[in-house]
Amino acid sequence: MADLALEEQLSGEVRLYDIDTEAARINETIGNRISQYEDAKSRWRYRAVSSLETALTNADFVIISIQPGTFREMESDVHLPEKFGIYQPVGDTVGPGGIIRALRTLPIYRGFAEAIRETAPEAWVINYTNPMTLCTRMLYEVFPGIKAFGCCHEVFGTQKLLASMLEDMLDIKGTRRDEINTNVLGINHFTWIDKASYKNRDLFPLFKDFADTYYKSGYEGLRPWTASVFASAHRVKFDLFKRYGLIAAAGDRHLAEFVPPWYVSSPDTPQEWKFHLTPVSWRINDMYAKQAQSERLANGEEEVELQPSGEEGVQQIKALVGLKNLTTNVNLPNYGQIENLPSLAVVETNALFSFNSVRPVLAGNLPRNVHTLVARHVYNQENLIQAVMRKDKEQIFNVFLNDPFMSRLCVHDARTLFEEMLSHTAAYLPEWIK
Amino acid sequence: MADLALEEQLSGEVRLYDIDTEAARINETIGNRISQYEDAKSRWRYRAVSSLETALTNADFVIISIQPGTFREMESDVHLPEKFGIYQPVGDTVGPGGIIRALRTLPIYRGFAEAIRETAPEAWVINYTNPMTLCTRMLYEVFPGIKAFGCCHEVFGTQKLLASMLEDMLDIKGTRRDEINTNVLGINHFTWIDKASYKNRDLFPLFKDFADTYYKSGYEGLRPWTASVFASAHRVKFDLFKRYGLIAAAGDRHLAEFVPPWYVSSPDTPQEWKFHLTPVSWRINDMYAKQAQSERLANGEEEVELQPSGEEGVQQIKALVGLKNLTTNVNLPNYGQIENLPSLAVVETNALFSFNSVRPVLAGNLPRNVHTLVARHVYNQENLIQAVMRKDKEQIFNVFLNDPFMSRLCVHDARTLFEEMLSHTAAYLPEWIK
Amino acid sequence: MADLALEEQLSGEVRLYDIDTEAARINETIGNRISQYEDAKSRWRYRAVSSLETALTNADFVIISIQPGTFREMESDVHLPEKFGIYQPVGDTVGPGGIIRALRTLPIYRGFAEAIRETAPEAWVINYTNPMTLCTRMLYEVFPGIKAFGCCHEVFGTQKLLASMLEDMLDIKGTRRDEINTNVLGINHFTWIDKASYKNRDLFPLFKDFADTYYKSGYEGLRPWTASVFASAHRVKFDLFKRYGLIAAAGDRHLAEFVPPWYVSSPDTPQEWKFHLTPVSWRINDMYAKQAQSERLANGEEEVELQPSGEEGVQQIKALVGLKNLTTNVNLPNYGQIENLPSLAVVETNALFSFNSVRPVLAGNLPRNVHTLVARHVYNQENLIQAVMRKDKEQIFNVFLNDPFMSRLCVHDARTLFEEMLSHTAAYLPEWIK
Amino acid sequence: MADLALEEQLSGEVRLYDIDTEAARINETIGNRISQYEDAKSRWRYRAVSSLETALTNADFVIISIQPGTFREMESDVHLPEKFGIYQPVGDTVGPGGIIRALRTLPIYRGFAEAIRETAPEAWVINYTNPMTLCTRMLYEVFPGIKAFGCCHEVFGTQKLLASMLEDMLDIKGTRRDEINTNVLGINHFTWIDKASYKNRDLFPLFKDFADTYYKSGYEGLRPWTASVFASAHRVKFDLFKRYGLIAAAGDRHLAEFVPPWYVSSPDTPQEWKFHLTPVSWRINDMYAKQAQSERLANGEEEVELQPSGEEGVQQIKALVGLKNLTTNVNLPNYGQIENLPSLAVVETNALFSFNSVRPVLAGNLPRNVHTLVARHVYNQENLIQAVMRKDKEQIFNVFLNDPFMSRLCVHDARTLFEEMLSHTAAYLPEWIK
Repeated sequence: MADLALEEQLSGEVRLYDIDTEAARINETIGNRISQYEDAKSRWRYRAVSSLETALTNADFVIISIQPGTFREMESDVHLPEKFGIYQPVGDTVGPGGIIRALRTLPIYRGFAEAIRETAPEAWVINYTNPMTLCTRMLYEVFPGIKAFGCCHEVFGTQKLLASMLEDMLDIKGTRRDEINTNVLGINHFTWIDKASYKNRDLFPLFKDFADTYYKSGYEGLRPWTASVFASAHRVKFDLFKRYGLIAAAGDRHLAEFVPPWYVSSPDTPQEWKFHLTPVSWRINDMYAKQAQSERLANGEEEVELQPSGEEGVQQIKALVGLKNLTTNVNLPNYGQIENLPSLAVVETNALFSFNSVRPVLAGNLPRNVHTLVARHVYNQENLIQAVMRKDKEQIFNVFLNDPFMSRLCVHDARTLFEEMLSHTAAYLPEWIK
Repeated sequence: MADLALEEQLSGEVRLYDIDTEAARINETIGNRISQYEDAKSRWRYRAVSSLETALTNADFVIISIQPGTFREMESDVHLPEKFGIYQPVGDTVGPGGIIRALRTLPIYRGFAEAIRETAPEAWVINYTNPMTLCTRMLYEVFPGIKAFGCCHEVFGTQKLLASMLEDMLDIKGTRRDEINTNVLGINHFTWIDKASYKNRDLFPLFKDFADTYYKSGYEGLRPWTASVFASAHRVKFDLFKRYGLIAAAGDRHLAEFVPPWYVSSPDTPQEWKFHLTPVSWRINDMYAKQAQSERLANGEEEVELQPSGEEGVQQIKALVGLKNLTTNVNLPNYGQIENLPSLAVVETNALFSFNSVRPVLAGNLPRNVHTLVARHVYNQENLIQAVMRKDKEQIFNVFLNDPFMSRLCVHDARTLFEEMLSHTAAYLPEWIK
Repeated sequence: MADLALEEQLSGEVRLYDIDTEAARINETIGNRISQYEDAKSRWRYRAVSSLETALTNADFVIISIQPGTFREMESDVHLPEKFGIYQPVGDTVGPGGIIRALRTLPIYRGFAEAIRETAPEAWVINYTNPMTLCTRMLYEVFPGIKAFGCCHEVFGTQKLLASMLEDMLDIKGTRRDEINTNVLGINHFTWIDKASYKNRDLFPLFKDFADTYYKSGYEGLRPWTASVFASAHRVKFDLFKRYGLIAAAGDRHLAEFVPPWYVSSPDTPQEWKFHLTPVSWRINDMYAKQAQSERLANGEEEVELQPSGEEGVQQIKALVGLKNLTTNVNLPNYGQIENLPSLAVVETNALFSFNSVRPVLAGNLPRNVHTLVARHVYNQENLIQAVMRKDKEQIFNVFLNDPFMSRLCVHDARTLFEEMLSHTAAYLPEWIK
Repeated sequence: MADLALEEQLSGEVRLYDIDTEAARINETIGNRISQYEDAKSRWRYRAVSSLETALTNADFVIISIQPGTFREMESDVHLPEKFGIYQPVGDTVGPGGIIRALRTLPIYRGFAEAIRETAPEAWVINYTNPMTLCTRMLYEVFPGIKAFGCCHEVFGTQKLLASMLEDMLDIKGTRRDEINTNVLGINHFTWIDKASYKNRDLFPLFKDFADTYYKSGYEGLRPWTASVFASAHRVKFDLFKRYGLIAAAGDRHLAEFVPPWYVSSPDTPQEWKFHLTPVSWRINDMYAKQAQSERLANGEEEVELQPSGEEGVQQIKALVGLKNLTTNVNLPNYGQIENLPSLAVVETNALFSFNSVRPVLAGNLPRNVHTLVARHVYNQENLIQAVMRKDKEQIFNVFLNDPFMSRLCVHDARTLFEEMLSHTAAYLPEWIK
């Protein structure tokens, strides 16, 4: 809201649709309050609406961000596998938790895609929900003509790390993340950088020194790894770099759950690697705090400070309405931007945004040994989409079983875990899979 | 030279290598004179060198622009086929003339590629010679690791036509060609635009009206079609648009020689379509005029006016040394930027230039009936490269025979024409093909 | 009928559906008469039926062979283009005649595919109608799950030529055509052999001598080229072999119309090359003779001599019901059997027939210069199917214009010819194209 | 030797080259003795030779079967990983053992390929050594023009199981394995059947009943699972069938090591699934017994009984010399026979053998969830070949780490195991990897 208010070239109506009507109302109030700020550069009208159809009618842009189910289901996703020795650092993207979460989410996205096809087929759709790849993929599966992409900020974090490296290693200060040119390729939360430069400097030789210097100790130049459950000392990133030669462009906790449990073979291993498992209890507390803040913002006890957050979505919208051209990384079906991943799977690369157009930039090939790590998830995700479309529970189990974090279980234990996780989330599942 | 002199962020040494040593000397003099101008914003040192190796040693950029053979050979290329009823509007790209010209040129480019591989493997190579596609392709065939691309200005002419249309149809004045966003796909001189916009306006509906309005009369808003042998009234472009739905992005005289002789079925047809055959006699006169001017510039009888010409090469160089990012159209091997053309064939699309990097932007698919017109030349060009590499004269004849302009000849006449054209250009051909 | 009667392992009911009810009745009578012959080894019941649905219900095999329109329309297909200097040797496969014929045929095949999908989705469908490739392709376009293939005898003729060559060059007598092992690749009537052997002998070196020996005179060892409008002296085949290195596996009159009019640049050129244009008047006389014979066979004035004709369809049926395995050439969608032709286009290669299964054998790549000749028609055919499905007359015109035999016409003449040919066949065209 | 002696249409010289010269001599004696048997139908000359070059000179066929290193190294391959909880049922194909074995074998095969390219480039090469896929792949990597294929008997075992099922379920007796038509697709030891028939009967519905009937108990109709270390009750096959819908066409002990340790999560799990881990101690005893027998056969204490063993290699040779056509399953580079596996990776499918020709039959696509299991190994194998070619130890470690059986180890333990296994086999490794 702050970013929109600060953007003088745009204005319009923001319709808020939420199955929690009260939440939409509060956001409506906050949004309209901000719009009246003296330092707001544009005026927006926020309006809570009571139906998806109303929200979509005549929309130019559709922004989707949902929580599938509640944190009670997420608790099962993330923590139930622990009784079989499986510790998931995040549990919302891949792993047994990510897959079960997807089972709740994908039927909802199927509905979104159908509604957009009916009511707003020409609108641009920006997805922020996890599992990002699967949600975006489902939109295209149902409505291949949709103009959708997934927007995620993990790569920006790695660009910030590279900027921080410039200061740490070369005393170059104040570099903005968008001054770091990167070629990005992979899938959301498991994206890789194979080329990075700052002005006329290739950053790879420098990163090699950087990784050597901080491999053992970790790097805490941006913040101490203990500062937050989301923070790390980048040791996983350094280890992957030393073995594969590429810079993995997501937080360590994400990276660690796309490979076999090399970095989470026990609940203590993450600590050695200086990153955190993200407990759902933390998320619940965080949610309470945010809800309380929302209420304060709505009733005027607290004010929003109008500062640009650097939200890329606003820049993307500006480009799509023809105000400028922009190159940034997004999640899109693979039309060849990554040559050695399957066609139409959703991948993350740079793309060129211009008036009513998003065109991927060719990112090239993933190197062989990284490719096999990524491809495994791509196949699993494609198979999950097809299994959900065909309502084939047995094929879903095969996908579940094939996740790298499941490798240590025998077939019987895997089946037991699958059924138990399903039962915990049954309220949000379609009939045929319960 | 003027563009370089006006570019304040660049400077350096320009080594001039020419098999006509005197020409290099004259250009050296002109260049160094310009560099001393008071209004020059950067100082360059021009130096004529006597060997390719000297020219290439430590080069950051290699710019290639040659005339293969003399206009005497070009006269045979362009005009000899006329005795079999074949009238070529240009004769340097495709058609019997383009193919014979390629036979003179490709062995030279083979040598260039080898020299660059030995002496300047990390340099960026910009090719300006025709046949553009084949020259660039040969560089990659010999040295796959080369960092080369072909730069051509025909698409810019179409962007100017669209800018002129904005003025003619909507009274929007002063639009610069780089404000016209286009998606470009095809091969050099037979490139197509399937999407064009200006700010937030889709230009296709407008172009449809424009083509309807001027289909019969032609459009002469930029200049009368009789103003120059290069000028046209765009009627070929309009006809192709009405049948195929895309805007062909090259001059009409180029377009007309990529299709069967629909627009040159007789020497008078071009006039009906309001474009010109380009006689080699004109080129010869033009050359004399330019040589005379060079001498005047070298000895100070005439001065260069320092005006930016808008040469894209300078902008590309700026991006490659890390001074900015740039999206523009270039000729590159197909790594997937055009999905339905063969891998590694040289194609023309937009690409993103940044520090030490040129990455194609995905251009999508050519529509079916345009695809078959383009693919025919792509196959012919790929086959010619292979035939030259394998020194297989019979396969070269098969390529020659397969050109659309050759369709009206029986096998025997085609063979006669082939041998006669070869004999006229024999001085410049490798032994095995004479 | 004779072949079926001689096949002791098969029997069943043959339902005859014909829009000419009387013709079906006559065939019913003939078939049932044959079935009563003493030397018949199996008994078949022939039954004329009055609806397609009746014909299809519970069918195991569906055999399709139709004449789209009458010879009056075919006369326009074949001979009308002559007034623009276009002489078509056959005119039922490609060329302006083949394309207009397809426009009459494809809507009928669309109906067949729909009927089979509804009534006999598990039946095997054997197509004998020309244009073979397009008819078979349409069946798959409408019903991708269809079990259909196209069966043509042209390749067998080339195998017979090779057997005759063995006798002529090496005095090896009595070789059966199925003893000649060939690898076949291409599209129907424009198929190529890149490997041929007899026992442990590679036939290519021998064919090279054979072609050299008979290049000028032609080869008439099977029959004189003047014996029939279908006969030739194989000079086109020899010329193609000398230039491309492969054996073109169809009659010369077919081959000559897939390339530009190299061998039919005037009405007299075929004679020089020792093959015939096939006039429709000949076909009409032939039809009358066959109708008269049918009547004699039906009323017993003449008897069928029970001799095996070598009809491959019967052997294919035997393999499909599990009686044996068989390798033979057929027309099928490209699943990769020809690597460098587009996926799903109908191509002709060998395939392995076994119980309820037809699997193509990998045929490899067409060599470059042959590939471009074949690909051009493949693209045209694929484009025609799509244009018919989308009812897009302008795209059909673009296909028509792109045929190699149309190259000599300017756009205006091409349009005139197109409209005139359409008008002559209007009675059999769908509304939208007339 | 017995099969050759019984084949009356073939004869020739068999040159025996072995780095154990004495072993070659003994085989020479045995072979020549057999050749003198009265019931031998053809006479062969066996000759031990002392160099590879002598063996290859003028060879028509090259048959390769080696043991890389000794059983001492194999002991480390198979059993050392057990101390990290990794139990490998075979350990010669995939898994840590298969990969280390490959490191010993691939440099030898590189040498074979070079020698064949120099001395016998036109010979047909039949490989019997494991790891089959990697050995065959290396031959093609070094000499792409080689005419090689891998021959393995595991699929035949599954055909025998289907024949036994016919007897057990339907009382159809005496079916030969080559009467069972199967479509085979996958990689060696992890091949799948997606279509099987006997005469006009589809065997899949029957196999479904069969798998249901024997899922719990296992099927011991061919022999009790306890009869041999190679025997099983096919429970793994039944479990895979129930989950994936295809019949896995190799012994259960092979199948179990291509998936994560679902069936070998502990040393006792195989027993539950009724198959055996194959201890190397057993192999050593077996080798002693076979060596003793060889000596008895050589000195005439024991005689060979001339019985056909059904060795497919002899039938393949007969087809390749033009004596017949044959369809059978082999290991070949992927030219498209399996659409969704990478090009040129070695895969196992049916192929058509004829004079001097082996052409794969199109096998179609692996279903999604089987594909991901197979693709993982295909990528690993392709990556291993490249890493060996480039002598890149770190990439070999990445391959090792990526094997499904390694999933339970953290990075550090994996590195420890890798180095220890290398040290045990160091005598047979190239310098750069020790």
